[in-house]
Amino acid sequence: MKIYETRTAPNPRRVRMFLAEKGIDVDYVQVDIQSGENLSKEMRKKNPIGKIPILELDDGTCIAETDAICTYFESIQPEPPLMGTSPIEKATISMWQRQVEFAFMLQIGMCFQHSTGYFKDRMVPVPEYGKQAGINAAKYMSILERRLGESEFIAGDQFTIADITALCSMDFARVVNIRMKDEQVNLQRWYENVSSRASAKA
Amino acid sequence: MKIYETRTAPNPRRVRMFLAEKGIDVDYVQVDIQSGENLSKEMRKKNPIGKIPILELDDGTCIAETDAICTYFESIQPEPPLMGTSPIEKATISMWQRQVEFAFMLQIGMCFQHSTGYFKDRMVPVPEYGKQAGINAAKYMSILERRLGESEFIAGDQFTIADITALCSMDFARVVNIRMKDEQVNLQRWYENVSSRASAKA
Repeated sequence: MKIYETRTAPNPRRVRMFLAEKGIDVDYVQVDIQSGENLSKEMRKKNPIGKIPILELDDGTCIAETDAICTYFESIQPEPPLMGTSPIEKATISMWQRQVEFAFMLQIGMCFQHSTGYFKDRMVPVPEYGKQAGINAAKYMSILERRLGESEFIAGDQFTIADITALCSMDFARVVNIRMKDEQVNLQRWYENVSSRASAKA
Repeated sequence: MKIYETRTAPNPRRVRMFLAEKGIDVDYVQVDIQSGENLSKEMRKKNPIGKIPILELDDGTCIAETDAICTYFESIQPEPPLMGTSPIEKATISMWQRQVEFAFMLQIGMCFQHSTGYFKDRMVPVPEYGKQAGINAAKYMSILERRLGESEFIAGDQFTIADITALCSMDFARVVNIRMKDEQVNLQRWYENVSSRASAKA
């Protein structure tokens, strides 16, 4: 199997970090998203919406979407669990994972795409929307700050996929100059903790 | 247990349809999102980002996010499976579910929120972005049309949660006048099929 990815992009990092936590080695194929290599006819056969990362299995089956790729690896190698084991754990982790994705990571991505015009060859940037998305991302940091005042990790007392998503989002947010505030001490404590895991360098 | 929801909103319909397919009955509590009842202090204790639907268990545990609520019910009652059983099925269904959510449903939602100003008391609408989001949603219909030319349902030959998400999105899209085109015959065949399920009326 192999994974098509772009080393510098935030979603592929989520997959690499997830696999590092599981101790799974996979071959990686680099795709140049800036030049639009991901939009080629060949890549769209692997993923019709033209995004990376994509996991290609040995029989040619392709799985796109970061969370779907992680779901595959969680299924074939449940240990250590990063997506929960009991019904309540699975649902709670899924809830935090999705809120971090929609209310934080997506907002940072939209701020990046609409403010910088990085992909202006393939989309119409709307800078005013980019600004709103950045404000939304900063607001969600306040929600994380409160949450991390009551639990060690985002979804509870265990490190999970939601922490991976939040860490990769937080580091990506620096690109658009969205950062933790000095008074967000719980967020900072959590950030230093998860950043120090070996998997954060994957 | 009970579910806080708004009868007319698309995400609660996804949960009701999922539960109808499973044959699970749950009590519902209506929340008036137009007046902002979902943003009250009490509701934010249940879900910090102030959105519905929310599943509240008898011990007070709250699970927000449509997909997380469905994950809970899939775990406690696996039959009939709507999120896959083998690792490849789970990953494939998750991939389609997420692409329908991000590239279709979210785009329709953004088109609605930014074009109509429905929530202008709590967000800053950017009409130009709403327009782009509507274009994105219409483009994704072309991807679904191609996909449904090669498989009966969105994630393969079985009805899954991805079909529920797509159907609820498609019906919501009418509000912003995004509709299937006459030539999208595969999409229409699929739409008539999934709309005729008893669960579509839940």
